[in-house]
Amino acid sequence: MQFHLNGFRPGDPDVHDPVDAAGAPDTPPDAVDVLIVGCGPAGLTLAAQMAAFPDIRTRIIEQKDGPLQRGQADGIACRTMEMFQAFGFVDKVLRESYWVNETTFWRPDEADRGRIVRGGRMQDTEDGLSEFPHVILNQARVHDFYLEKMRNAPTRLVPDYGRRFAGLTVDPDADYPVTVTADRLDPGHEGQTQTIRARYVVGCDGARSGVRKAIGRELRGDSANKAWGVMDVLAVTDFPDIRLKGLIQSADEGSIVLIPREGGYLFRIYVEMDALARDERVASRNITADHLIAATQRVLRPYSFEVKEVAWWSVYEIGQRLCDRYDDAPGDGTRTPRVFIAGDACHTHSPKAGQGMNVSMRDAFNLGWKLAAVLRGQCAPEVLHSYSEERQKVARMLIDFDREWSKMLGSPPRSKADPDGVDPEEFRAYFARQQRYTAGTTIEYGPGVFRAEGRWQALAPGYPLGRRFHSAPVVRLADAKPMQLGHVVQADGRWRVIAFAGPDGAGIAALCGHLGGADSFLRRVTPNGADVDAVVDFRAVFRQGVHDVKVEDLPPELLPRKGRFGLIDYEKAFCADPAADIFAMRGIDPDGCIVVVRPDQHVAHVLPLDGHADLAGFFEGFLRPAG
Amino acid sequence: MQFHLNGFRPGDPDVHDPVDAAGAPDTPPDAVDVLIVGCGPAGLTLAAQMAAFPDIRTRIIEQKDGPLQRGQADGIACRTMEMFQAFGFVDKVLRESYWVNETTFWRPDEADRGRIVRGGRMQDTEDGLSEFPHVILNQARVHDFYLEKMRNAPTRLVPDYGRRFAGLTVDPDADYPVTVTADRLDPGHEGQTQTIRARYVVGCDGARSGVRKAIGRELRGDSANKAWGVMDVLAVTDFPDIRLKGLIQSADEGSIVLIPREGGYLFRIYVEMDALARDERVASRNITADHLIAATQRVLRPYSFEVKEVAWWSVYEIGQRLCDRYDDAPGDGTRTPRVFIAGDACHTHSPKAGQGMNVSMRDAFNLGWKLAAVLRGQCAPEVLHSYSEERQKVARMLIDFDREWSKMLGSPPRSKADPDGVDPEEFRAYFARQQRYTAGTTIEYGPGVFRAEGRWQALAPGYPLGRRFHSAPVVRLADAKPMQLGHVVQADGRWRVIAFAGPDGAGIAALCGHLGGADSFLRRVTPNGADVDAVVDFRAVFRQGVHDVKVEDLPPELLPRKGRFGLIDYEKAFCADPAADIFAMRGIDPDGCIVVVRPDQHVAHVLPLDGHADLAGFFEGFLRPAG
Repeated sequence: MQFHLNGFRPGDPDVHDPVDAAGAPDTPPDAVDVLIVGCGPAGLTLAAQMAAFPDIRTRIIEQKDGPLQRGQADGIACRTMEMFQAFGFVDKVLRESYWVNETTFWRPDEADRGRIVRGGRMQDTEDGLSEFPHVILNQARVHDFYLEKMRNAPTRLVPDYGRRFAGLTVDPDADYPVTVTADRLDPGHEGQTQTIRARYVVGCDGARSGVRKAIGRELRGDSANKAWGVMDVLAVTDFPDIRLKGLIQSADEGSIVLIPREGGYLFRIYVEMDALARDERVASRNITADHLIAATQRVLRPYSFEVKEVAWWSVYEIGQRLCDRYDDAPGDGTRTPRVFIAGDACHTHSPKAGQGMNVSMRDAFNLGWKLAAVLRGQCAPEVLHSYSEERQKVARMLIDFDREWSKMLGSPPRSKADPDGVDPEEFRAYFARQQRYTAGTTIEYGPGVFRAEGRWQALAPGYPLGRRFHSAPVVRLADAKPMQLGHVVQADGRWRVIAFAGPDGAGIAALCGHLGGADSFLRRVTPNGADVDAVVDFRAVFRQGVHDVKVEDLPPELLPRKGRFGLIDYEKAFCADPAADIFAMRGIDPDGCIVVVRPDQHVAHVLPLDGHADLAGFFEGFLRPAG
Repeated sequence: MQFHLNGFRPGDPDVHDPVDAAGAPDTPPDAVDVLIVGCGPAGLTLAAQMAAFPDIRTRIIEQKDGPLQRGQADGIACRTMEMFQAFGFVDKVLRESYWVNETTFWRPDEADRGRIVRGGRMQDTEDGLSEFPHVILNQARVHDFYLEKMRNAPTRLVPDYGRRFAGLTVDPDADYPVTVTADRLDPGHEGQTQTIRARYVVGCDGARSGVRKAIGRELRGDSANKAWGVMDVLAVTDFPDIRLKGLIQSADEGSIVLIPREGGYLFRIYVEMDALARDERVASRNITADHLIAATQRVLRPYSFEVKEVAWWSVYEIGQRLCDRYDDAPGDGTRTPRVFIAGDACHTHSPKAGQGMNVSMRDAFNLGWKLAAVLRGQCAPEVLHSYSEERQKVARMLIDFDREWSKMLGSPPRSKADPDGVDPEEFRAYFARQQRYTAGTTIEYGPGVFRAEGRWQALAPGYPLGRRFHSAPVVRLADAKPMQLGHVVQADGRWRVIAFAGPDGAGIAALCGHLGGADSFLRRVTPNGADVDAVVDFRAVFRQGVHDVKVEDLPPELLPRKGRFGLIDYEKAFCADPAADIFAMRGIDPDGCIVVVRPDQHVAHVLPLDGHADLAGFFEGFLRPAG
């Protein structure tokens, strides 16, 4: 963490100095730059991101009367933990959550198919996949962390609860092109209608999204006729693996997914209910928590299962549905998007792979910095097309995976009686193959305005273009601190250029000379008076150990002067950690290379260390010269 | 973290359900169990500890009108970080603080003694000393974390600011033997006197402690005639090691201790001022921050040093002083103590070894659980003598170390001109030898009521009796979570019995049989209706890997039923981590052993795994049978 740059400031460094959120004097009172509809995971991720920009006016409205208290999603993939790190609250999540370390597989006992037996056990996240574990934590707590982040941000963003989205209109030529109306449900204002004008509107309002309907998009897909129940319980059982994630298949009583929860006692059970008849809906079944408990007891035989408290429960039908476009841009390309949708408004799926909340938050993480770049004049509005392009493909992959996985979970295990059932070994093998996918670390954005073609990929095979920047250990030169290189990428809307040096630092001085030169692209894109790293943050990693590089030998570009005092930032240069050499781990070319990392932590480009003109050209493809 | 034991509870698990702090109906309104005087590090450590006990009424008063904002102590030793872990906020400190990874040594250039040159560089904390680093963080932030912990505790403890201790009297026969008067300084109450009655009073009111004076104790020692200046600055310099802890000796201009600070820009300089004449005091010198800056500039030559902001500064004389007893118990043994002193009230020393705040907090950590045990009826009041006995010896060692170290820092480096000066190599070697001491990990309490003689020490040489329980990695059996065994010791006043198994779990079942038996000491000391681990928390560590021990094979004592639902606690059994085998790291005997850990994390006893009667005998030496 860096702070005190512009003078010592007592108190919590996570609580930023407030800015006047009223905006410029001529700003209309009910006009904002970004209006977010919905305080779910997508909406709050976006709000936390936007709240960090003092010059952007954001508002977030929510139909409910206050923050979420319990239930709903709980799985947090490794990739999402990396994102939480960028938002600054991953330590809290690590401390409070259940860590999914291993998964067990239980199946019918071949000798007595009315009983289940342990079928196997495997590590949940393969070694080296991420510096963070896969964890489980109540969605409400994730909301809390985002809300705290928003409240402490310069703009002190707090949701407006009790506002139900009612409709919107778009006038592309207006200063604030989108006009939204909302019904007020908050005490004392019931029955009133509120009008908010916005430059951009993002609908994070769930599977029944009003914003989606208002822009004429729809979810397409199937609603499978299979019902699943989910419950968070405090229970006593002699099932021995109750504190491990478990996939439990009985012979004749269906399947269970067991997810231990935070705090050491609570756990979640997903239990397969009877298949629904065609056109039958869950609501018509009168299913209660007791049904879920009884179904669980049948699957777990011969083990006992005595529920003491049901903290939350629900029943849902599996349905994988997807929207074909995530914004309101017309297909004829006549204008850029003004309204976006994110999260469940764009895609729904079964919860058992623990993907939904994760994909939703990452939708918002993809969109936030792009909106900021356009609103701050750094990029042309055309770049906003890339949001739907990049994220819709991801969701399609997810839906395909989810469909296959749900089918597998919903099928009986293979036996003489069920020769078409799923072979437990196949089930387990499929699970293993999909682990990387589920962790979220293999999501890959295709080439586009913010991602180069892979011409020089061979210089750093460990940093595949379009995937997230895979962190690895380094040692910070100036203070010899062992740390994760990826953790320099904070959720602050900045780009990172990370130079991996050649032998003995070769190539760094020349690159610095270029970046610091009078006609450097870095100068052109950085506003007058702003810190040199305000838009693009340059860092270097040396191959040598921390005792073999001297601070006094660094070029000035790696010791930039910043803030109102012109203090030196000593946190730009790193060395390889001899115990875990990042150059070897990521296969960096002996002559080094440059890796460009987007504000959402994805790799945008890999170039030769002397590819100065190509580097400039890449950035000038989307970054406008600053004033 | 464990929570939800008595039912799902939304929100932050660190915010406990409040209890009615008014006490029993017949409690006098101005009477408390414990009155703490002073909101410094010792007072807040004690308050945070006491606040966790719902059945103990604690009050803390402070002369100042609100929390500390800046300045003063900043060094946090490894051992103190371990204690912060027990209080639950070490992650916040890790995130926000500067990590002292290496120390550099600078000395006069032999070729040109008017210039300093790099003399060497060494790791600050030796490998394996602690799972935590040595860090630097503003004392005010440490206070903040304690205050948050108190505020969120069941008793919702908040300091009473604006109360100046005025005096106390002790009537050993009264229900509330200590009567304290305090002058109110808070707005609207100026000039009023407040009377508070208490069972115990703890003076954490600093070097000029009024509580100390009231019980007739005094600080004895020397006030050396050497003045040091200290300042926290934002500055620009070309001194290259400015982000490393540095001990910098010039030929003729004195010495500097450089301590980089949190946030990446701030640093602290301790600078030697001219020697004071005999009987001269700092106050008579009219020293200003400009003097400190000028002195620093002279030492740092040939490097530039341009100060942009002085966040805090002070000048002090070195003086090592110590109180011979930390409580009011008369020397004739006629009664047990009712008033204690802790922290600077008992010992003062120079700040440069970064020891003062650490020793003060550990004073309080030693006292807190003992007070709680007596107030809750678990122990006889006589055990309270052990506080002064244990902590006074520690302070004496510290004073001796500090005196030698300060002398070394205050002496000129050896040269032709100064043949009696300190050899820089000797200086460095001394520094290295003292690293373990400075880290606080070698503090050792002698035999006494809470620490056995070392009869079976050879069974676990890695757990020296009287020293802190040295954590090491393990894997929790039920959920395969890799973790630190030492982190099970929370600041909750409980004892831990940790059984290290013999081959294939040998000895565990027999020990469990004893502990679970009808005449077990564990039953006798645990109150009726309380969880079995409410007083003594039993855990076991197996030699095998986590796949080689089965949850279903554990004895019921390692799967205890707890809380109002009788839920199973699955967090009592651990396995060795193959990557770092705790049995090898701590030299555990092949037949296993028992390690008893005090509530303040110190090792109280090491016994054979079958030493059932000795284990019971040890506990029955101080724990009373519960009702």
